Amino acid sequence: MEKFYPEFSARFAQFLEHIRGRRIAIVGHARPDGDCIGSQVALARVLGTLGHEVLCVNPDLVPRRLQFLVPGMRFARTDEMLADRTDYTAIFVDCADHARAGERLKGRFPVVTGNIDHHLSSAGFAEWNFVDVHSAATAEVLAGMFFDNGLTVDAQTAQGLYTGILTDTGQFRFTSTTRRTFLLAAELMARGAKPTEAGFELYERETTGKLQLLERFLASLRMECGGRVCVGTLPNGIFEATGSTAEDTEGLVDYARCIDGVDVGVLIEERPDGAMKASLRAKNPAFRLDRVAAQFGGGGHACAAGLNYKGGAAGFREKLVAAIAAQIAAVDTPEEKK
Amino acid sequence: MEKFYPEFSARFAQFLEHIRGRRIAIVGHARPDGDCIGSQVALARVLGTLGHEVLCVNPDLVPRRLQFLVPGMRFARTDEMLADRTDYTAIFVDCADHARAGERLKGRFPVVTGNIDHHLSSAGFAEWNFVDVHSAATAEVLAGMFFDNGLTVDAQTAQGLYTGILTDTGQFRFTSTTRRTFLLAAELMARGAKPTEAGFELYERETTGKLQLLERFLASLRMECGGRVCVGTLPNGIFEATGSTAEDTEGLVDYARCIDGVDVGVLIEERPDGAMKASLRAKNPAFRLDRVAAQFGGGGHACAAGLNYKGGAAGFREKLVAAIAAQIAAVDTPEEKK
Repeated sequence: MEKFYPEFSARFAQFLEHIRGRRIAIVGHARPDGDCIGSQVALARVLGTLGHEVLCVNPDLVPRRLQFLVPGMRFARTDEMLADRTDYTAIFVDCADHARAGERLKGRFPVVTGNIDHHLSSAGFAEWNFVDVHSAATAEVLAGMFFDNGLTVDAQTAQGLYTGILTDTGQFRFTSTTRRTFLLAAELMARGAKPTEAGFELYERETTGKLQLLERFLASLRMECGGRVCVGTLPNGIFEATGSTAEDTEGLVDYARCIDGVDVGVLIEERPDGAMKASLRAKNPAFRLDRVAAQFGGGGHACAAGLNYKGGAAGFREKLVAAIAAQIAAVDTPEEKK
Repeated sequence: MEKFYPEFSARFAQFLEHIRGRRIAIVGHARPDGDCIGSQVALARVLGTLGHEVLCVNPDLVPRRLQFLVPGMRFARTDEMLADRTDYTAIFVDCADHARAGERLKGRFPVVTGNIDHHLSSAGFAEWNFVDVHSAATAEVLAGMFFDNGLTVDAQTAQGLYTGILTDTGQFRFTSTTRRTFLLAAELMARGAKPTEAGFELYERETTGKLQLLERFLASLRMECGGRVCVGTLPNGIFEATGSTAEDTEGLVDYARCIDGVDVGVLIEERPDGAMKASLRAKNPAFRLDRVAAQFGGGGHACAAGLNYKGGAAGFREKLVAAIAAQIAAVDTPEEKK
């Protein structure tokens, strides 16, 4: 059979050989999404079948909507991990850099043995890096390497990987979706992935608080750059006011992006500590939003980037819009066109 | 290679032999959706490669959002078709029965040579029927039979088939989605289908008016029946106030339905003529919303029904909620449970 990841699979087998018998911590990032949790669950279960003792670690809780992926799995948070002085071999998943899991977990795991990711800005900070920027999801890389090596993918593992692919492709819609993505989805269904269950859990269990947050976000939308950038703002205190949580912001920025004529959608969230969090989404990867985010200490993908700016609220929105406008102008200039 | 439709493919080759050299009309249904238009375009193009003169026929216009599928294709409406007395061999696609294309087109084509469909209620009204109720879309049946027979699937054909599958699976989410669905999507991508373009045209060309309408609809949401029914209301004049159109109400009711714990979502629209239009959506077909709608002169499916009530606004909402509550109570009663 054709290999899904011919460039990685043999090396992944060597990696598994290298870590054989060790106790493993699978570390994900702050505010974990479907690809992060799905990849953690899947890798933990596959390593479990190989005899490893495995623990998943995140700075934040597994979001309510992703709880369906984790029955029977051990998830620890930062405090618990710092109190646990056992020796773990660390594998980071879906983390573009070492600090994506938070500075405290970075300190707890100064040496990272494995790193599996698909982010453009991924720094290759581990001893063994499996980073493919052409993959739609970390779960896609994992699924391909698991199948290529004939590893045991049970129904819960398959559902984790499927959910990672589903969420990170925006339901098979982003440009990162390839023929391989669909072939892996087919194979994951054959192993027990349930698209209907994933769709129900992810998209049909909204809270009224989330819908009130959406209502407020829609009311805040403003056009910039002649209608090519649409910015929505969530002021400090809005979660309390609407009965929502920070995790309910997921997906809001897509309402700004999906307006006809808009190239870049932006969500700005004022944090209680005065920091400004921004999510940037483009329809076209030419806009390289990862570069825009990098100007504010952030990162991500060409079409989906984020940042957490601690320089204060004053003038932030204007600076961010100016940086996006400059990026759009660069793409519009014929010399820069792709 | 494994066949996608082993039960159909040889017979489909015989069918193509049977119609060889004939002038073909490919007939779709009223209010055509992505599966209807995508299937028509794809079948027309494949028959074109076999030397047929082909015309697509629908009672209604190709919707704005599906225009990206039809460049260079001939689409006729009912009047034009009735005026054209040329002899056509009729193939119906995505039509559960002969009259789905309207009584006038049924009269124009009293004999149907081919029928390709996936609806549960499909009546097998043609000389050659290719109806698979386990398929997610008519486009899935067509794609499988095309690949099984080695027919020419170019990029525009692939995009039509992909779009049919995408829309009729609710973005690969409905229970009809199978391993075969994903394998066909992979093969269609290899032939030039573009998921990002389809997603863009279908889901990323919102108007600001539509988002304002959504904002107002969300603000109007109220719970009934202890949180099991969620009702949103669009008052008369809201389209003018938000810069939206009646067509923009599509999908709004799903926001009411998709709340955790809600069984039935409702949208009530006050029409300028004083009529009350309502859309009802359930998560579970047990609630038989078609029966609720019928009490107000409406109809539809178990999970998706609608009505247009001319008895005046006074007390309408209360009567409708009471009817839904009675239906829920009937389902809750063990004797009535399925």
